Amino acid sequence: MAGNQDDDGRSRDAGRPALSGDCVGILAGGGPLPGQVARAIQALGLRPFIVGFLDFADPAVIGPWPHRYIRLAAAGDILSCLRAEGCRDLVLIGPVRRPSFSDLRPDATGARIMARIGRALFSGDDGLLAAIVRVLGEEGFAVHGAHEFLAGSVGRRGVLGMARPDAGAESDIRRGRAVVEAIGRLDIGQGCVVQDGLVLAVEAMEGTDRMLLRAGDCRQPGRPGGVLVKMLKPGQDRRADLPTIGPDTVHRAAAVGLRGIAFQAGATLLTDPQACVAAADAAGLFLVGISAEDGKKLF
Amino acid sequence: MAGNQDDDGRSRDAGRPALSGDCVGILAGGGPLPGQVARAIQALGLRPFIVGFLDFADPAVIGPWPHRYIRLAAAGDILSCLRAEGCRDLVLIGPVRRPSFSDLRPDATGARIMARIGRALFSGDDGLLAAIVRVLGEEGFAVHGAHEFLAGSVGRRGVLGMARPDAGAESDIRRGRAVVEAIGRLDIGQGCVVQDGLVLAVEAMEGTDRMLLRAGDCRQPGRPGGVLVKMLKPGQDRRADLPTIGPDTVHRAAAVGLRGIAFQAGATLLTDPQACVAAADAAGLFLVGISAEDGKKLF
Repeated sequence: MAGNQDDDGRSRDAGRPALSGDCVGILAGGGPLPGQVARAIQALGLRPFIVGFLDFADPAVIGPWPHRYIRLAAAGDILSCLRAEGCRDLVLIGPVRRPSFSDLRPDATGARIMARIGRALFSGDDGLLAAIVRVLGEEGFAVHGAHEFLAGSVGRRGVLGMARPDAGAESDIRRGRAVVEAIGRLDIGQGCVVQDGLVLAVEAMEGTDRMLLRAGDCRQPGRPGGVLVKMLKPGQDRRADLPTIGPDTVHRAAAVGLRGIAFQAGATLLTDPQACVAAADAAGLFLVGISAEDGKKLF
Repeated sequence: MAGNQDDDGRSRDAGRPALSGDCVGILAGGGPLPGQVARAIQALGLRPFIVGFLDFADPAVIGPWPHRYIRLAAAGDILSCLRAEGCRDLVLIGPVRRPSFSDLRPDATGARIMARIGRALFSGDDGLLAAIVRVLGEEGFAVHGAHEFLAGSVGRRGVLGMARPDAGAESDIRRGRAVVEAIGRLDIGQGCVVQDGLVLAVEAMEGTDRMLLRAGDCRQPGRPGGVLVKMLKPGQDRRADLPTIGPDTVHRAAAVGLRGIAFQAGATLLTDPQACVAAADAAGLFLVGISAEDGKKLF
């Protein structure tokens, strides 16, 4: 299942993830990836069970699989449901807007878990997700990364479509990588847009789509289009919140006049790799998986 | 004129700026500050002459003063006009959108100057402005900071109005300061919004107003409001592009639910200090001048 990924040698999975039972639980936010993970689990001869976070999980995606909808903060319900289904292995996948306290209404277990998460509730996303993965581990679950199941959707290193970044675009990619590394260290975000050396927009809480719109508004006419760069935060746990690119991302990037997208190879999920490449080729955008490390070849 | 500023001891001006002639030229972008600088120059018994950048300078602001409108890229016209007026001392003040190449249409001198600015044309704002200040120096002009003339408008250290930041807000201010320092080092921008430890938005090319709107949209309900933090870029030349706060900034911050604004003491211009404080007091926002240095008292 999980074949070798050219991800700069950091996590070459030799085969299927090490699992302890026959059921794998999926804690599902939005988007199509929870369904893809379920399909991959089934292909391994295992049983997927999806806990869909209410208001986030897409019924069309998780409907075809054994599932239950539970509020994000109802941690007691979530844990007992997963235990009742015999799922000791878990995958967290799909975006979830950061909850607000007033929305949360945690159940009793949820309140205890929130107390254990403590200050991380107030830190950036990465701190929060890392704390959730840690708590799930303390509760006896093994948390796996979605990329372990979706090897075919992990963006590999190199140029994926027909367009190639030229020297100017490479220079923008390098600057963008340095910017995303800096903002990632501060647990701010995973992306930015650079045009001809100029940082047009930096992603924080608003997400990639809104950043792209803004970058389009700030675009400098009369120069080559900008480049979207998406990277893991340095030291980020890969079992939650991998940078994700879908055909929509490519369409939006093209619509605001960008000339390409660079993503961290081996650490980015393409929700539909073929459709991403087709969209990029149709729009003349490049799509390139890059190394996270400064000293190495860029792609 | 330029009294002592509590600006962390970095540039205590003992009196009036050292000037070599009786005319001071003002290269004017938008907003009310060019007029205030002109008034300050006149109060020193000197003659102000304003070169208003076409499409940026506000006719209502520069109209009452001796002035000429010239295109930003017509550097030859600008320099010969300033020389004809006998202005060897210059002040750059008021925002100018970064020009695009297609808009520029430089004159012959402008093209030569662009060649001298070279790569900085493609770097961030700070690199570009520093290069322009350098070129003006090479052309025989002395470039002064607007803050040297507008001592009364330089935000001082400490709480300016009635509201005070509490411990949580202080913590957000410290995090914001670290964030702005990091993005400033990368010559990205001068501001961010932090709410309860979470970085809601980071300013790049879009400017403070748009960042504030976005921060409002990303605001986490059920928690205290966020804080706007504005700082110089580390190492930034103070003779161009000082962070600026006006009553509008305060109104916008209040409208999106922030609880206060922190700015770098001694390095931020308040376009109308009394109106800023009045607006902050009316909205219950704090307005505080902070130290740029981590080791020192915050305010």
